[in-house]
Amino acid sequence: MNGVMDRPVRVALLGCGVVGSQVVRLIRDQADDLAARVGAPVELAGVAVRRLGLRRDVEVPEELLTTDALGLVTRDDVDLVVEVIGGIEPARGLILAALEHGASVVTANKALLAEDGPTLYAAAAAADRDLFYEAAVAGAIPILRPLRESLAGDRVTRVLGIVNGTTNFILDRMDTLGSGFSEALDEAQQLGYAEADPTADVEGFDAAAKAAILASLAFHTRVAALDVHREGIAEVTASDVASAREMDSVVKLLAICELIEGPDGPSVAARVHPAMIPRSHPLANVREAYNAVFVESQAAGQLMFYGPGAGGAPTASAVLGDLVTAARNRLADVRGAGESSYADLPVLTMGQTQTRYHLQLDVDDKAGVLAAVAQAFSEHGVSIQTVRQEGRGDDAQLVVVSHTASDADLGAVVEELRAMAYVREVSSVMRVEGAAE
Amino acid sequence: MNGVMDRPVRVALLGCGVVGSQVVRLIRDQADDLAARVGAPVELAGVAVRRLGLRRDVEVPEELLTTDALGLVTRDDVDLVVEVIGGIEPARGLILAALEHGASVVTANKALLAEDGPTLYAAAAAADRDLFYEAAVAGAIPILRPLRESLAGDRVTRVLGIVNGTTNFILDRMDTLGSGFSEALDEAQQLGYAEADPTADVEGFDAAAKAAILASLAFHTRVAALDVHREGIAEVTASDVASAREMDSVVKLLAICELIEGPDGPSVAARVHPAMIPRSHPLANVREAYNAVFVESQAAGQLMFYGPGAGGAPTASAVLGDLVTAARNRLADVRGAGESSYADLPVLTMGQTQTRYHLQLDVDDKAGVLAAVAQAFSEHGVSIQTVRQEGRGDDAQLVVVSHTASDADLGAVVEELRAMAYVREVSSVMRVEGAAE
Repeated sequence: MNGVMDRPVRVALLGCGVVGSQVVRLIRDQADDLAARVGAPVELAGVAVRRLGLRRDVEVPEELLTTDALGLVTRDDVDLVVEVIGGIEPARGLILAALEHGASVVTANKALLAEDGPTLYAAAAAADRDLFYEAAVAGAIPILRPLRESLAGDRVTRVLGIVNGTTNFILDRMDTLGSGFSEALDEAQQLGYAEADPTADVEGFDAAAKAAILASLAFHTRVAALDVHREGIAEVTASDVASAREMDSVVKLLAICELIEGPDGPSVAARVHPAMIPRSHPLANVREAYNAVFVESQAAGQLMFYGPGAGGAPTASAVLGDLVTAARNRLADVRGAGESSYADLPVLTMGQTQTRYHLQLDVDDKAGVLAAVAQAFSEHGVSIQTVRQEGRGDDAQLVVVSHTASDADLGAVVEELRAMAYVREVSSVMRVEGAAE
Repeated sequence: MNGVMDRPVRVALLGCGVVGSQVVRLIRDQADDLAARVGAPVELAGVAVRRLGLRRDVEVPEELLTTDALGLVTRDDVDLVVEVIGGIEPARGLILAALEHGASVVTANKALLAEDGPTLYAAAAAADRDLFYEAAVAGAIPILRPLRESLAGDRVTRVLGIVNGTTNFILDRMDTLGSGFSEALDEAQQLGYAEADPTADVEGFDAAAKAAILASLAFHTRVAALDVHREGIAEVTASDVASAREMDSVVKLLAICELIEGPDGPSVAARVHPAMIPRSHPLANVREAYNAVFVESQAAGQLMFYGPGAGGAPTASAVLGDLVTAARNRLADVRGAGESSYADLPVLTMGQTQTRYHLQLDVDDKAGVLAAVAQAFSEHGVSIQTVRQEGRGDDAQLVVVSHTASDADLGAVVEELRAMAYVREVSSVMRVEGAAE
């Protein structure tokens, strides 16, 4: 069991872009280490690309390249398929074909897993093969394996993640330089942290897909991307960020997954939105394009996993980690821990979610303003933690932080405030997370 | 494969103290979840204790308690042994007997692993059984599994860990309150963060054992506790901490494991000592008794794992995570990834280690002092990064930060400075880690 076998483990790679070319490089440069760790040499059986004859970031022997991806994944000499094409099709069809044909699969495809994970998990279980996807969430950071295995004897109650590097870079710049959103986005695009069309990142679609994957694994249930409440950061203003700063807080785009105990048993909630967190919170120090996932569990307490959330080499590192385990399993003819959705928990709507709000209101500096505002909160059963008046006359402002209440009630309060004659403008509305009540 | 089997996985627990009683509680309170995750019920077969009839933190049915630990681990109905007694013997003998008798083992015993790990790993391999020990390093933080599995396709080059909560609490208090060492130690003892005899923590023995385990796993080689250079924090003064603060740095007790490329190939070094790190480094924000392990690898870049490093429930969480994997493996009749020491790398002495120094010297305020000090550095081939004179007359001080040099050369410089007539006192000597050159 300790020696290196002669029979190689053969890998088909789908896609040879930023991540794929780094996968090729690591398999080649670390051949000896991989052989020792797997127990057999790891060989590239073929690389499926869209077009032949392109210049690539890595040299791939011409005889390995093919445009026939389906032909490659169903070849009898392929033990493992690595999918780094992304998107729904043809990735889904190729992964299903690979599993059906007896190959194990490693993928970095968060969009596909969040949209149709259960189909893939079922196919892997039916084929008795591994389907691993550590690279799909938070790049190089080992987070899925710890959730699935290290915390398997514990009860995870909450996951707070900074899982999108583009938006974290933008918000970090807004915090440190006082930039506005579009200025920070421009800089992110110039530095290559944001794409020309930044919608998937900025509007929170990318983070929502990752939240669905994290919630499913953490709570042993099924959460799809569509179950995740999603708000992006395009509406976050320099003034919001300044308000946070005054509260000794910072604005982050968070993916929040919660296990909520109710009278009828537990349910789950998953949401992505900008939120204020106190600077003393470990997530507050996650700078630039880094990612981090903060996990709360009953026995372990508070854990955090931090690292680069994207990039070719970091993502390839996560792919290779999965590849080594899947290869070892193929040699031993076993299957690793798969998905479990035995808990089968209901998913709460955003309105039912419990949260806190930080509000900043431009108000008339008149007697009775505070009473009227407080009345709006109490009518909806939302209790106020602190209220602070700043400025006088035309600059009068109220800063209100609520206690925990349902998001629906909080939203109703905000709507009512917006309609009040005394209130000239609700200038900042932000949820507050990660703070003691 | 997806259902829960009838045949239970039976667990023998050795020790029922702070950790053991939490293991009992988790196995009982989470019975349904564990059964779903393992694929079979997990049952306690017996609990070995030193004395019967004691009051314990958890209720254990009397018929499960025994003082015959050896009899328990060699019972035919025991599939898994959890060892949380600690210390070298009888723990070693019991673990070896358990493996030989066909049980898999989960242990939290860092001292034993650091002293005699290879014997245990060989016994596990010979018995074709798992030996897992996530709880031995950094409590609840999943760090061994990520090093062994998630980073198996990458090349780890450096591990910097805050792996002892007691010393981190003391140094954090010295930093935030300006306390002296003994004052902070007193507080740690009053709060239960330090033991009555704090030697193992304060002198770095505990951290050195963990450094040996981390280095072995990270670099796929063998590093024993005796290979680890060890300095504790008893000599760290309030003035050292203040000097660090002036440099916008903080003093931490670090466990440092490095892979060093040399002309004759790679070697490793492992050391535990107090060091200054810049406040911008992710480890600098690790407060109170928390632990964190910072990992640098070629492809993944910089990762950090953070959480509670000790305590009954957190340590039990790590034990249970291992237990679930070991139980799944027993049911499938396979063995997980074991230790690999194929790299078989030489271990450097501390003198050969490359590091940087921060020195504070009380000097005579005379012409020629700086030249003489600079001469001492250059004689030993150590280059100076910055030098700063502070104060005048009797308060004159030089603050010198070196570039990277061998620890032996740096030590020789310090010795020579101490002997110089111009230098009244070398008031602070501290290595500098985690900073750009």
